[in-house]
Amino acid sequence: MWAVTVDGVGTPAVLRWSQVDDPVPAPGEVLLDVTASAVNRADLLQAAGHYPPPPGASPILGMECSGTIRELGPDVTGRQVGDEVCALLAGGGYAQQVSVPAVQLLPVPPGVDLLHAAALPEAACTVWSNLVLTVGLRSGQTILIHGGASGIGTMAIQVARALGATVAVTASRQSALNACHDLGAQIMINYAEDDFVEALAAATGGRGTDVILDVVGAKYLARNISALADGGRLVIIGMQGGTKAELDINSLMRRRLGIISTALRSRPVSGPGSKAEVITAVTEHLWPLIAAGSVRPVVDAIIDMPQAGAAHRRLGQGGHVGKIVLRAPTADG
Amino acid sequence: MWAVTVDGVGTPAVLRWSQVDDPVPAPGEVLLDVTASAVNRADLLQAAGHYPPPPGASPILGMECSGTIRELGPDVTGRQVGDEVCALLAGGGYAQQVSVPAVQLLPVPPGVDLLHAAALPEAACTVWSNLVLTVGLRSGQTILIHGGASGIGTMAIQVARALGATVAVTASRQSALNACHDLGAQIMINYAEDDFVEALAAATGGRGTDVILDVVGAKYLARNISALADGGRLVIIGMQGGTKAELDINSLMRRRLGIISTALRSRPVSGPGSKAEVITAVTEHLWPLIAAGSVRPVVDAIIDMPQAGAAHRRLGQGGHVGKIVLRAPTADG
Repeated sequence: MWAVTVDGVGTPAVLRWSQVDDPVPAPGEVLLDVTASAVNRADLLQAAGHYPPPPGASPILGMECSGTIRELGPDVTGRQVGDEVCALLAGGGYAQQVSVPAVQLLPVPPGVDLLHAAALPEAACTVWSNLVLTVGLRSGQTILIHGGASGIGTMAIQVARALGATVAVTASRQSALNACHDLGAQIMINYAEDDFVEALAAATGGRGTDVILDVVGAKYLARNISALADGGRLVIIGMQGGTKAELDINSLMRRRLGIISTALRSRPVSGPGSKAEVITAVTEHLWPLIAAGSVRPVVDAIIDMPQAGAAHRRLGQGGHVGKIVLRAPTADG
Repeated sequence: MWAVTVDGVGTPAVLRWSQVDDPVPAPGEVLLDVTASAVNRADLLQAAGHYPPPPGASPILGMECSGTIRELGPDVTGRQVGDEVCALLAGGGYAQQVSVPAVQLLPVPPGVDLLHAAALPEAACTVWSNLVLTVGLRSGQTILIHGGASGIGTMAIQVARALGATVAVTASRQSALNACHDLGAQIMINYAEDDFVEALAAATGGRGTDVILDVVGAKYLARNISALADGGRLVIIGMQGGTKAELDINSLMRRRLGIISTALRSRPVSGPGSKAEVITAVTEHLWPLIAAGSVRPVVDAIIDMPQAGAAHRRLGQGGHVGKIVLRAPTADG
């Protein structure tokens, strides 16, 4: 098959469309003909050599895809060759075929075509696992979503609104803030112009926010803590602003605050806290929101997979709204 | 009335038994004739000038007591003069009388006398709010309790066991570890002799612990994070080892860990996250465990209230097991 390979290690990495060995499904896995994958920021880190895939995972980039089941590996039940699905991957999505544990498959939600379904698994599983399974966001609460126009952000805005929360977002471009507003965000903060802590305090009568979904990490730690309402939770899912920062425990204790950090890729396949657990919850609770039309995949651009390098540059430069989808050439090349 | 007053500010502070003005119950408050109070570490900090009472609270030491209702303030319903109760206080317990919001009263649990009931409110509310309301400790999980022989620790061991958790404790004296074992702890770690992270890993097959109840803070932050199992929660309720430490967010993200810090005293009287909410939960769920005999107040010593200074020295020196109760002289002095 053909797949995207990384030529050397460097920034920017050179991505090539290359012929590689076909994957073979292990027990419990299915082999998919990939319709499309989508770009995640972690892919850029992995291409630059900063985020090695977990042990046993494909070295090929790509943490999500949509496609059609081509072959069932040993010990797979309840699946049929020809089923259209999307999938959460530990790697390998930037390719014409990928092997994936059957428990990491999701159905294609009603009303979404197979191409656009590639934009869903990472954003849906990340948002649901953090907002619902980790901090239990509920109606009447406020959430601040940093990078509201990102793939994760556009999904988080819609899910939080569907849960009945008030949604604040940050972005640095007016066009991005407008897009967030159109998706349901009620408090738009341009972090390039305003201090987000002050802007959020002004918008909430000084109360702050119950939950923050953060992708910045160290650089925002102290300010995120300041932005939380009493009893609030900071959920860190990215470290674009570094990993190490001074923590003042007293600033947490006085107001009963919590900091939680999570990743999807390192979760075990099955068992407590696993990908399978997240996928079950997403299928049961988030897919119906998509079927009902209250949540939809937001796709910034559809780019042919052999041009993955251009897709990475687009994500790296910012200004996109939603997910960048990589359309795979058909299996005959 | 007579009460303990702090003579100047210093370490050790001099505590005196002095005549002071009688408290007057505000609307929603009741006036208690105090049977007993109990010593908390925060009292030592407050006496040393490091922990001022929250705005509006009595300047007198004492965050819990038992006693009899002497008078109802305006707008109090459902209470009778003569009722025997215990209470969570924002301050004022080291005295013959104290005024307290009626929502901060708890019944005296069946099987506990009024004197020993003074040992319950802080430990019960701290343990239940953190273990159950904050991190949802459940059967089959493991908890590490630092300072297992303390007032909080002895309550936490019993509650965690009643919830079905496996309990590990740290202490520096064999006598304290023996007492923890007698209360139900299954993994005893002498932190003066062994590194608690290594000892816990050895006792859990390398898995670590799902929850840590910590009173050390900064000095233990990195090691507590190391001791957590995937998905674990560190709950910091004391900062005996300092307040500021470097946090490596990556160490949280890889294993989906969380750090939460809470305090009871700064909670609002009523509303979400309030003392009233905690007290309702404790009365509904923890008091029945006491009535059933699976949890009991652990009292290290009963000391007459005018000798509060001796009680503080006993707590400061360590070696106690459970709570130090301060028995109030009768109201006629």
